[in-house]
Amino acid sequence: MAASSTSTTPRTIAVAVTGVGLVGSAFISQLLSVPKPNPFRLIALSSSKHTLFSPHGLEITSESWKPLLQTAPPKTASDLAKDLASLVSPAQAVVFVDNTSSEAIAGLYPTLLGTGVHVITPNKKAFSGDAGLYERIVRASGESGARFLNESTVGAGLPVVGTLKDLVATGDKIKKIEGVFSGTMSYIFNNFSTPQPGGPSFSSVVKIAREQGYTEPHPADDLTGSDVSRKLTILTRYIPSLKPSLPLPQGYLSVPTASLIPSQLQHLITPENLASSAAADTFVEELQKFDGEFDEMRSEALKEGKVLRYVGVVDVEKGEVKAELARYPVTHPFATSLGGSDNIVLFHTERYGARPLIVQGAGAGAEVTAMGVLGDLFRI
Amino acid sequence: MAASSTSTTPRTIAVAVTGVGLVGSAFISQLLSVPKPNPFRLIALSSSKHTLFSPHGLEITSESWKPLLQTAPPKTASDLAKDLASLVSPAQAVVFVDNTSSEAIAGLYPTLLGTGVHVITPNKKAFSGDAGLYERIVRASGESGARFLNESTVGAGLPVVGTLKDLVATGDKIKKIEGVFSGTMSYIFNNFSTPQPGGPSFSSVVKIAREQGYTEPHPADDLTGSDVSRKLTILTRYIPSLKPSLPLPQGYLSVPTASLIPSQLQHLITPENLASSAAADTFVEELQKFDGEFDEMRSEALKEGKVLRYVGVVDVEKGEVKAELARYPVTHPFATSLGGSDNIVLFHTERYGARPLIVQGAGAGAEVTAMGVLGDLFRI
Repeated sequence: MAASSTSTTPRTIAVAVTGVGLVGSAFISQLLSVPKPNPFRLIALSSSKHTLFSPHGLEITSESWKPLLQTAPPKTASDLAKDLASLVSPAQAVVFVDNTSSEAIAGLYPTLLGTGVHVITPNKKAFSGDAGLYERIVRASGESGARFLNESTVGAGLPVVGTLKDLVATGDKIKKIEGVFSGTMSYIFNNFSTPQPGGPSFSSVVKIAREQGYTEPHPADDLTGSDVSRKLTILTRYIPSLKPSLPLPQGYLSVPTASLIPSQLQHLITPENLASSAAADTFVEELQKFDGEFDEMRSEALKEGKVLRYVGVVDVEKGEVKAELARYPVTHPFATSLGGSDNIVLFHTERYGARPLIVQGAGAGAEVTAMGVLGDLFRI
Repeated sequence: MAASSTSTTPRTIAVAVTGVGLVGSAFISQLLSVPKPNPFRLIALSSSKHTLFSPHGLEITSESWKPLLQTAPPKTASDLAKDLASLVSPAQAVVFVDNTSSEAIAGLYPTLLGTGVHVITPNKKAFSGDAGLYERIVRASGESGARFLNESTVGAGLPVVGTLKDLVATGDKIKKIEGVFSGTMSYIFNNFSTPQPGGPSFSSVVKIAREQGYTEPHPADDLTGSDVSRKLTILTRYIPSLKPSLPLPQGYLSVPTASLIPSQLQHLITPENLASSAAADTFVEELQKFDGEFDEMRSEALKEGKVLRYVGVVDVEKGEVKAELARYPVTHPFATSLGGSDNIVLFHTERYGARPLIVQGAGAGAEVTAMGVLGDLFRI
């Protein structure tokens, strides 16, 4: 039809994927399963050590990519970025998908975006850290027109970032966002603090959460609350009215964040220990000594008819952003609706005034995170 | 920068808006309030009687458009469609926004799409009716590359259609979708059937719902359940695996739908009566005679520890789609989380297996519906 040449410019979309951990592997599998005609051509696949690269498209399958990658030569991420830049043309969009959690790779986004390469990632580092890096990302994207999409940085596959962007873009006024943003914290408190009196000890719940794979390898990585303050920082940066009052110059580090690590155990939290399984065992063991304190918080809350939940709050009207262990009435959605390791996010806005817009569901896991990434790819 | 010419083709987006009722007016107001640089140029504005049209952009403000439109000449929708088609070019995308609920205008979508004009609408008619029309829409869109977006046909501004599309596009398997899809039905049953025994009579709740503006001018329009079966039809058409077992040849009319209009009152429901305020008064008056029956359903449910909710269900595994008055445990989200005229939608999928993905919030109202439309416009 005549229309096809005028209404849209046919483009191919070349995709370079970095990171082949749990999320990366799930993403590759989902990408290769997109039904024909698959609009995406996978041109690069990198681990920290090896890179498969072919501008005309890699010839790989779900079964073959792992062995092929293991024998591929190395290529630095910045060399890859240069190669990708050279492939951008009016006939071909190029997308860099970062499925790592690397700070170094996040540092390449401004260069990539500046050369017209789109960036999609569940990696929170670039959007929750140094405001300077974030501003360079926004500026590079604005100048080249290349986009950065990060739906899966908050709530994994749940429509959280996109919903916030839509609310803001269409002129709604955000009043407050509150939610349970950490799947680990959700699991822990859904099991520890219920409307019934008593219940298991805090350390025993942490122990089970770890055994079931709901925590990072070292549970202290979750109990610091920094995963929540990173997510809050990401959301906050989409709310224009917060910028003047809350510039967050240092990113998530400037968000007041309640750590659940008892101060007496703080000395156990070193970079070496966080990477050690034995140190994690010791930490959970030591945590038992503080079960009494957590018990007391739980029963104090229940005396008021409330449960404990680890929440993140962005209060636009008060200009306040915080991650804290708070008490919620047993009739509140955080008490009645939550289960498992669900995330839940309540958007209180001018339009959703009387009752908030709520998004809820699994907020972590390789499959749902990869889905958030692939969803963004479809939006390019 | 060199990149800007290669990475994206700069395009302007010309927007033609039809329908200036509550949703249309809210949409125009939101569109005119998009912060600069506003990427959209409003080129046409039509009511059923008048059309403002200027290919270079209408010079209107939030205050001036109503009086200007009232003195504008008429133009048929099909003439407008021809004018729009002539404006499509590689440098300019053209979007037709249908804020009416007109079946006739819905019938123009294939023509518009076939000539490369994108279509965005909260109008359910084209997507929930005749499968032939729907197929012509899909085909025309596929051939020209012009898109049709209808996020606001289900749940207004809530991310329901988009979430379903993302789930399907990224390869998740939908098992079941269930929800309260009608704001009116939500309001009525949230007030009529609670975990406490007794409560107001059915007819009194309908009367209040009508007085508060939660119903259509004639509440029978809501009580037929067809609003729900239309929404279910729209969702069903995005689920590939349902197609063979459930072709829905007649659209929403083939969805088994429980009407809450007592059969003895069915004779009161005529096209003339539905447009008459006096007939609506009579209907609500007559409804009192059936309060006993509704009371009994309510207390029967509560004996089982359940409440009544008017729900829509798409059960993919069973190949079953239905709109019905069902009983849900008092601990179910439909009983605990719902309030006001909230919609709630639960997506049970392969990835969201143990616990569903949930979207909840106001699912009707001019502002939130217009927001869903404008959100779609940003996606073009």
